Amino acid sequence: MKNYSIAKSRRLRGTPYTSRIEKQGVTAYTVYNHMLLPAAFGSIADSYEHLKKDVQVWDVAAERQVEIQGKDSAKLVQLMTCRDLSKSKIGRCYYCPIIDDSGNLVNDPVVLKLAEDKWWISIADSDVIFFAKGLASGHKFDVKIIEPVVDIIAVQGPKSFDLMEKVFGKIIKELKFFGFNYFDFEGAKHLIARSGWSKQGGFEVYVQNTQSGQRLYDHLFEVGEEFNVKPGCPNLIERIESGLLSYGNDFDNNDNPLECGFDQYVSLDSEINFLGKEELKKITLH
Amino acid sequence: MKNYSIAKSRRLRGTPYTSRIEKQGVTAYTVYNHMLLPAAFGSIADSYEHLKKDVQVWDVAAERQVEIQGKDSAKLVQLMTCRDLSKSKIGRCYYCPIIDDSGNLVNDPVVLKLAEDKWWISIADSDVIFFAKGLASGHKFDVKIIEPVVDIIAVQGPKSFDLMEKVFGKIIKELKFFGFNYFDFEGAKHLIARSGWSKQGGFEVYVQNTQSGQRLYDHLFEVGEEFNVKPGCPNLIERIESGLLSYGNDFDNNDNPLECGFDQYVSLDSEINFLGKEELKKITLH
Repeated sequence: MKNYSIAKSRRLRGTPYTSRIEKQGVTAYTVYNHMLLPAAFGSIADSYEHLKKDVQVWDVAAERQVEIQGKDSAKLVQLMTCRDLSKSKIGRCYYCPIIDDSGNLVNDPVVLKLAEDKWWISIADSDVIFFAKGLASGHKFDVKIIEPVVDIIAVQGPKSFDLMEKVFGKIIKELKFFGFNYFDFEGAKHLIARSGWSKQGGFEVYVQNTQSGQRLYDHLFEVGEEFNVKPGCPNLIERIESGLLSYGNDFDNNDNPLECGFDQYVSLDSEINFLGKEELKKITLH
Repeated sequence: MKNYSIAKSRRLRGTPYTSRIEKQGVTAYTVYNHMLLPAAFGSIADSYEHLKKDVQVWDVAAERQVEIQGKDSAKLVQLMTCRDLSKSKIGRCYYCPIIDDSGNLVNDPVVLKLAEDKWWISIADSDVIFFAKGLASGHKFDVKIIEPVVDIIAVQGPKSFDLMEKVFGKIIKELKFFGFNYFDFEGAKHLIARSGWSKQGGFEVYVQNTQSGQRLYDHLFEVGEEFNVKPGCPNLIERIESGLLSYGNDFDNNDNPLECGFDQYVSLDSEINFLGKEELKKITLH
């Protein structure tokens, strides 16, 4: 297959780590949320083998956040997702299909509950921010919706636990799957979740302090030699093998969550109010 | 500057013309509305010279449509744009900044009025469909919102008029700037507008009949030799020289239309109701 260049422009935003991955040998990009997402560092098969064995550091800043804050924030977040968040806890991540009035998928983000009135929606590749703004405006919700400066570094692979312990101390290993907390790196606090777009285990660092994040990126390589750390990116082979679906690739706004096997995240029997609930109920009756 | 490959995937959709432009020598892509948009056929400078002199055929299928139909469609379209559409006419295109509650830009599409209750929003690079769906849901508007199958072919450059006359007859030259009508090609009707993302003159064919559109694409090259027709794409040099701004490159959701010189499309003195009107009024008072 012939290779075509990507024409860079400000519209396809770079990340705080782009210059680093280009020095490290990135060979291909995709575009995700209007941002450059590395897609290959040479052979994807070699990268797959390495990811399953050692540890990789990924520039996944393209996983953008939609921050929803304010009195009606919980109501708006719940309206957008078919997953029951009524018992959700601060410090936890939730995989939440977002659906529209027709019951069709808009996105399949991970939602982080930062406070009772503050949420981050860590999105797949569609402009959830405008869906949220439209809904908030129509419902006259008291919320503030922004895309905050957050540029995620993922640390993935079986040796990610030892590498992260070396940087953040033993305490990082106490983080439960899909839990998050704040950890110190050289005096700066970073929100870190035990999550990531592979099934090889690992962490995502939600970098808000850009300079510290860049230092952290470099530091992971400086101290990671003993774990054979390498740069990487979400790996097509691994993610398909692991059954991780991708909005835009495997499903889109023409599909509903029940068709995608997301049944466990569709709370039709709950009391909660979300878009498309009646439509999805009709589908289950067929 | 080093070249990086674009990693193709279904998420970065191809167009009905992708296989054709790849045979014709496209060298770089950008991504626009989750779709491949050609960005270069070799030298951009050579392409610029050619565009100003002759005629080019462009695969701009990435200019997607948001179709809004139904009883409340006019109300929803007007709510989204600061341009007064109360006197808008069927068969005309309107450049309409779309803004949010804060008065900031969401997109800067061309709006086509197809009927009193049917509109196409021909969008720049952001998911306007989800903004529209959110607003419609919140306001309980009686509308149907879809992304129809429309894959635009643009014919641009000073000789576009003669080339299009050769295909569609003299009548195509009667089309006024930003007017559209339906024209026959080998028995299929095509919506054609006198518009396009250059200032060299030309047309955009809103292809709904894909097979006929592919035939048309080929036909333009078959009969266009005398006009020195070549494949092309929106040209960075020409569009900057012509002062055509680009959402995501030159402005984005952090900017308001007054900052972008769109004053003539901001109808603050009208009776119409649109999002962000009060915010923009405050800005003009400063």
